[in-house]
Amino acid sequence: MSIGLYPGTFDPPTFGHLDVIERAATMCDKLLVGVAQNSSKKNICFSTDERAAFLKTLLAKCKNIEIVHVPGLVVDFAKEMNVSFLIRGLRAFADMEHEFQMALANKKIGEMETIFFMADGKYAHISSTLIREIARAGHHLKDFIPAEIEPQVAPRLHQYLRQS
Amino acid sequence: MSIGLYPGTFDPPTFGHLDVIERAATMCDKLLVGVAQNSSKKNICFSTDERAAFLKTLLAKCKNIEIVHVPGLVVDFAKEMNVSFLIRGLRAFADMEHEFQMALANKKIGEMETIFFMADGKYAHISSTLIREIARAGHHLKDFIPAEIEPQVAPRLHQYLRQS
Amino acid sequence: MSIGLYPGTFDPPTFGHLDVIERAATMCDKLLVGVAQNSSKKNICFSTDERAAFLKTLLAKCKNIEIVHVPGLVVDFAKEMNVSFLIRGLRAFADMEHEFQMALANKKIGEMETIFFMADGKYAHISSTLIREIARAGHHLKDFIPAEIEPQVAPRLHQYLRQS
Amino acid sequence: MSIGLYPGTFDPPTFGHLDVIERAATMCDKLLVGVAQNSSKKNICFSTDERAAFLKTLLAKCKNIEIVHVPGLVVDFAKEMNVSFLIRGLRAFADMEHEFQMALANKKIGEMETIFFMADGKYAHISSTLIREIARAGHHLKDFIPAEIEPQVAPRLHQYLRQS
Amino acid sequence: MSIGLYPGTFDPPTFGHLDVIERAATMCDKLLVGVAQNSSKKNICFSTDERAAFLKTLLAKCKNIEIVHVPGLVVDFAKEMNVSFLIRGLRAFADMEHEFQMALANKKIGEMETIFFMADGKYAHISSTLIREIARAGHHLKDFIPAEIEPQVAPRLHQYLRQS
Amino acid sequence: MSIGLYPGTFDPPTFGHLDVIERAATMCDKLLVGVAQNSSKKNICFSTDERAAFLKTLLAKCKNIEIVHVPGLVVDFAKEMNVSFLIRGLRAFADMEHEFQMALANKKIGEMETIFFMADGKYAHISSTLIREIARAGHHLKDFIPAEIEPQVAPRLHQYLRQS
Repeated sequence: MSIGLYPGTFDPPTFGHLDVIERAATMCDKLLVGVAQNSSKKNICFSTDERAAFLKTLLAKCKNIEIVHVPGLVVDFAKEMNVSFLIRGLRAFADMEHEFQMALANKKIGEMETIFFMADGKYAHISSTLIREIARAGHHLKDFIPAEIEPQVAPRLHQYLRQS
Repeated sequence: MSIGLYPGTFDPPTFGHLDVIERAATMCDKLLVGVAQNSSKKNICFSTDERAAFLKTLLAKCKNIEIVHVPGLVVDFAKEMNVSFLIRGLRAFADMEHEFQMALANKKIGEMETIFFMADGKYAHISSTLIREIARAGHHLKDFIPAEIEPQVAPRLHQYLRQS
Repeated sequence: MSIGLYPGTFDPPTFGHLDVIERAATMCDKLLVGVAQNSSKKNICFSTDERAAFLKTLLAKCKNIEIVHVPGLVVDFAKEMNVSFLIRGLRAFADMEHEFQMALANKKIGEMETIFFMADGKYAHISSTLIREIARAGHHLKDFIPAEIEPQVAPRLHQYLRQS
Repeated sequence: MSIGLYPGTFDPPTFGHLDVIERAATMCDKLLVGVAQNSSKKNICFSTDERAAFLKTLLAKCKNIEIVHVPGLVVDFAKEMNVSFLIRGLRAFADMEHEFQMALANKKIGEMETIFFMADGKYAHISSTLIREIARAGHHLKDFIPAEIEPQVAPRLHQYLRQS
Repeated sequence: MSIGLYPGTFDPPTFGHLDVIERAATMCDKLLVGVAQNSSKKNICFSTDERAAFLKTLLAKCKNIEIVHVPGLVVDFAKEMNVSFLIRGLRAFADMEHEFQMALANKKIGEMETIFFMADGKYAHISSTLIREIARAGHHLKDFIPAEIEPQVAPRLHQYLRQS
Repeated sequence: MSIGLYPGTFDPPTFGHLDVIERAATMCDKLLVGVAQNSSKKNICFSTDERAAFLKTLLAKCKNIEIVHVPGLVVDFAKEMNVSFLIRGLRAFADMEHEFQMALANKKIGEMETIFFMADGKYAHISSTLIREIARAGHHLKDFIPAEIEPQVAPRLHQYLRQS
């Protein structure tokens, strides 16, 4: 059985994430969507539990998808869970260098392969920078994040960003 | 009447900024040069008032240019002032991704268009990194910032950077 | 009166072109959409007259837009027509270097300024490469070019590309 | 059964290609390596049959890999063969824009997904430009292409490039 | 004695080339400026002899600089002449991938090292594209190429480009 | 006598650094390898003395190489030491903009030239990000840093990164 792991921060999950998740789910028997603690990354608005809950709400109907917590390094967790390969999305050129480095590191550390999906054209510009700027202005986010979670996400993000 | 807004930190204003300002001023009936508070950006050497004063000194003779403070989000301020479009300069590839994201955010949030000017070849490499490195070394900055403000800017920047 | 010129090959016009045209038309009193001969560029499918006719069909209702032929160099034509500035769209990173060079050349040659619009996210990936690959496969192009001209464009492009 | 298709020109096959093939073969039940006609691409040195023969020699022992000819468009062939997804390798930044465009085209045309592998660090600079320059100089290619085919490839490529 | 070789087409030599030559000449005991035949590159306006003559005119006073013809591959010629290292200029991002590939090829083929200089800011945008566009328009080129050769170069280039 | 200075943080020294050092040492009579204090850069694991000691261990046999401390600005130190030129390595596209800016600053400040070497293909992806991720996971680093210092470096880096 092939098991894919799509790790991320998902703070919050966007249409871009869901697009990758749906496409990746067709490539493997089971897809783990891994919510990273991301202790080093500042500016996390939602707790790990909240982010996992968002994903569970959005992906409840998908049978071969499971939402999991990634407690430490992605590659350690992946090996422990018998993951066959990691999954990442690529948006334009922005994060290529970082993605190259991480993919290479995961291969060297744990013989763990990473496969990449190109972000769909219409999601290519949905970055956290964009969403945060829009939330900071107090605007709704329904063009960027699913309607099921938008009412909880937008005000929290707005409040959080105005304070920080 | 078309009103353009060129927002920036201007810490300090450079020949590159002035070049964009002069070119943009020919494109609109009135050009607002907006000094951003930029609370999140660290390493600001000069106060908002000082930066506005520099610009006023440099642009005193330009009839259709006004120096303004941008108190919060650029797009909110732009709408309040009936701005027709935002103006930004582009230097090589360095800030493309950020500029794309901000332009898209401002369009989504406030239907506010951004137009871009390519930095002139001779200013293409005048970045804040360059100016700060030169100031840190205690050298004059007259190749990069106008003579009218250089004597005030260079020593302050030097002192500030040595301390930080 | 400010006059903008948006030069291009428009072989054929796409939603991306129309998006730039509509946005640019709000920035100037009159917008010239200039169909270039483009003698050096191979692989032109439609004649200059056909391409101008497509644009006329699509932009018939826009009062301040005029479709024109650009007989030689864009900058020579622009000066002759008293154009205030050139207009170009930017898609991701693909054509930055070329656009930088041409904007600089036009400024040096004819003191002609170029202003840039960022392509909207949903048109960011509509390039001629994409459209040609889709047309070559014999598929319709209605996601990429307007319905008014799609029935004429798609089969001609398909036939043209299969032969070349 | 999941079927992957890795299309390419393979003129000639390199260590970089073999690396992608081996990694991709672990992701699907059957991997088709598709030799494209590539009529539009000039400077093809070896015939389709020769290139397919090279791949057969190199991959003879791999049980779930099959070498096939791609007669027309990749996406048409992929659908005909019930391919589950296309496979492509990415080397640094060089071919990102092209790959984005083709992946999007194949998704639009045929609902055909593309997954990407990052080229391993040690193959990241093996491009056809590099190999051709080295062959043109009359040097052996054993650092770049497998020993089994090097003696046939290098002199032919040398002769071909000197003439063209 | 260290010998540097700066190979190029120099069709025609620009201020950007002269800047690299002057800087490189201080790094080696003898600097060879090598005029390449460049048979594969189309659109060469001046003959090898003319291009060498331009360089001789411009560099007559420099004692440790010699203008030479490069008859075949650069690396073969470099080895024959006991060259210590090759020299190349880098302008922004435009030619990085090509330069990486060629430097690696020359190292693999002939153990020949390449050292790079960053183009000075004020020459960063002087590319052949720019110069050709300006010449095509019939304008003088004195901002881009030295006054000693401009009167011969500009009309010839203009005539050549109008015909092609 | 030509003196080159290769400045860096070397936290820790990698195969990529050693490759540049060895190549640069053939270009100058004396090569200074300068260990920077780098007070502004966070996340330095090893002290200046430790980093200098690593380099001394690794380069003990090289006669024309000297390990030095760079107390303040690189360019000030370079002038004081009568350095002829600075040396830097370039990996892919990642650090081009920064390197351009620093090279230009050093030229403006102190008439100090910088020459660049392209990272060898096999070291092109050895960045500090990669090494830190691998060390964080508790894995050995022998593919990336020399065996002589690996036993001291890996556990310290692991411990340091887990804490930060």
